[in-house]
Amino acid sequence: MFDLTRYLDTASARINQQLDELLPKSGPSDRVIEAMRYSLMAGGKRLRPVLCLSATEAVDGRSESALSTACAIEMIHTYSLIHDDLPAMDNDRLRRGRPTCHVAFDEATAILAGDALLTSAFEILATAIETSRDPRAAAANMREIAQAAGCMGMIAGQMQDMDTEGRRLTPDQLETLHSLKTGAMIRACLRCGARIGKASAGQMEQLTAYGENLGLAFQVTDDILNVEGDPAKMGKAAGTDRMRNKNAYPALLGIEKSKMMAQQLIDSALGEIEEFGQRGDPLRAIARFVITRKH
Amino acid sequence: MFDLTRYLDTASARINQQLDELLPKSGPSDRVIEAMRYSLMAGGKRLRPVLCLSATEAVDGRSESALSTACAIEMIHTYSLIHDDLPAMDNDRLRRGRPTCHVAFDEATAILAGDALLTSAFEILATAIETSRDPRAAAANMREIAQAAGCMGMIAGQMQDMDTEGRRLTPDQLETLHSLKTGAMIRACLRCGARIGKASAGQMEQLTAYGENLGLAFQVTDDILNVEGDPAKMGKAAGTDRMRNKNAYPALLGIEKSKMMAQQLIDSALGEIEEFGQRGDPLRAIARFVITRKH
Repeated sequence: MFDLTRYLDTASARINQQLDELLPKSGPSDRVIEAMRYSLMAGGKRLRPVLCLSATEAVDGRSESALSTACAIEMIHTYSLIHDDLPAMDNDRLRRGRPTCHVAFDEATAILAGDALLTSAFEILATAIETSRDPRAAAANMREIAQAAGCMGMIAGQMQDMDTEGRRLTPDQLETLHSLKTGAMIRACLRCGARIGKASAGQMEQLTAYGENLGLAFQVTDDILNVEGDPAKMGKAAGTDRMRNKNAYPALLGIEKSKMMAQQLIDSALGEIEEFGQRGDPLRAIARFVITRKH
Repeated sequence: MFDLTRYLDTASARINQQLDELLPKSGPSDRVIEAMRYSLMAGGKRLRPVLCLSATEAVDGRSESALSTACAIEMIHTYSLIHDDLPAMDNDRLRRGRPTCHVAFDEATAILAGDALLTSAFEILATAIETSRDPRAAAANMREIAQAAGCMGMIAGQMQDMDTEGRRLTPDQLETLHSLKTGAMIRACLRCGARIGKASAGQMEQLTAYGENLGLAFQVTDDILNVEGDPAKMGKAAGTDRMRNKNAYPALLGIEKSKMMAQQLIDSALGEIEEFGQRGDPLRAIARFVITRKH
């Protein structure tokens, strides 16, 4: 029986240790480094970097070789949280159970800490290319991550999310929004991990489809938890989406249909990786966890 | 006689055309793309990308091969201006003679447009690596740019600049601040251009020193223009540094000593590239221009 808790604990510990090593401890401005570390080392599920490592393992690659790419992805995720939380954006004061970066420091520092995490991520990816045996494949990973994070991916999703507040979207429109805002990066995690593990074209396709289904299921579940979740466990207030007139699946489809949708997406994700045998166990367990988690 | 005006016009036209091609015209959020284009295509001197191209030419390389790297550097420069202009940072309402990005759009859009320009820059650098004959050298360029732009370079400089407002720095401290805030990126322009042109170790050293001297001279002149300049030509209000209690050379050394310092730095920059013969003419003319410009 595959032990997910133990797997996640081990993987997050490796990721946290590597993140700690990759970030400077001091520099010409200690304040901005403190703010970067405050947000990056605040914990969180480390879902994205774990998915990257698990994808490498699923195609029989060494997850060690995906570790720095996985950490770069987590830095990009954290930068996006810092900027999304800003007063001019979602104006959130609580994240992962602690004051958000601009509350703990100030707005200017939070903007710069986000910028610096994004920049550090690409510095790490550049070093990964320089030291890779296959620099062109490593550069393809970097391009894929930049595309997923940029104005055709995550940033467009955040912009759409703000632009459509208070306006009711169709389920298709909401799916597009999420595929940009969270889906593109989750998909990139899987694809980069797969590429590092030298996936075949078929495996790459399957892991891409797994990632797309998982990403959307993750978001639907997030929306459900935002209505039903325990604020103490989630580290942020429940019901904030509705308060803010954010588009979310429960409001659009109802809670029961939203749960069915999440389950169907996870079934599809699992179907995609049927052929992976035992090496796919972590990805299977993560898929099941994504919709059963309570925060 | 070398014609700098013509050289700069030709080079900026190439850069502007390439920037226009590199940025998407539309996407899942047209608003963020409009904001990116608004700030990126607002003109400006294009000093940084021109320096990159000129460094490649100075070591007898084809400037064509440096064009996308030069454009990536200009995108990073523009992102830094957008974020520095934000209300939480320098709160500037005018830039390059037009309303700043957050005034023309809004704060959230300006934050995301800056993020997206930074991300696009790295996407372009990734593509440059994938298509380069020497992917490891191209990756070294990217790492160098990320380091210059990040929390050990430009971002630390901006943080120091804000942290020290209203507190009088020593000339050495001000030099450190500027070497981070503007110097590191200007140095990187020269080094990346040189590397693309396959500079020898000696040439790399000389162009690095040229860049360090030029970068500081540029900043000293900026400070002088902020006191003496014609606001209509500068595209921003004069005297803003003093109003804001920013540390600047004229306040620290007096105008005359500041002008002497700028001249000495340019003499040093010119001395570094003495051996470059005719191929160094653009860099020489740029160095002279940097301290004689009126805006």
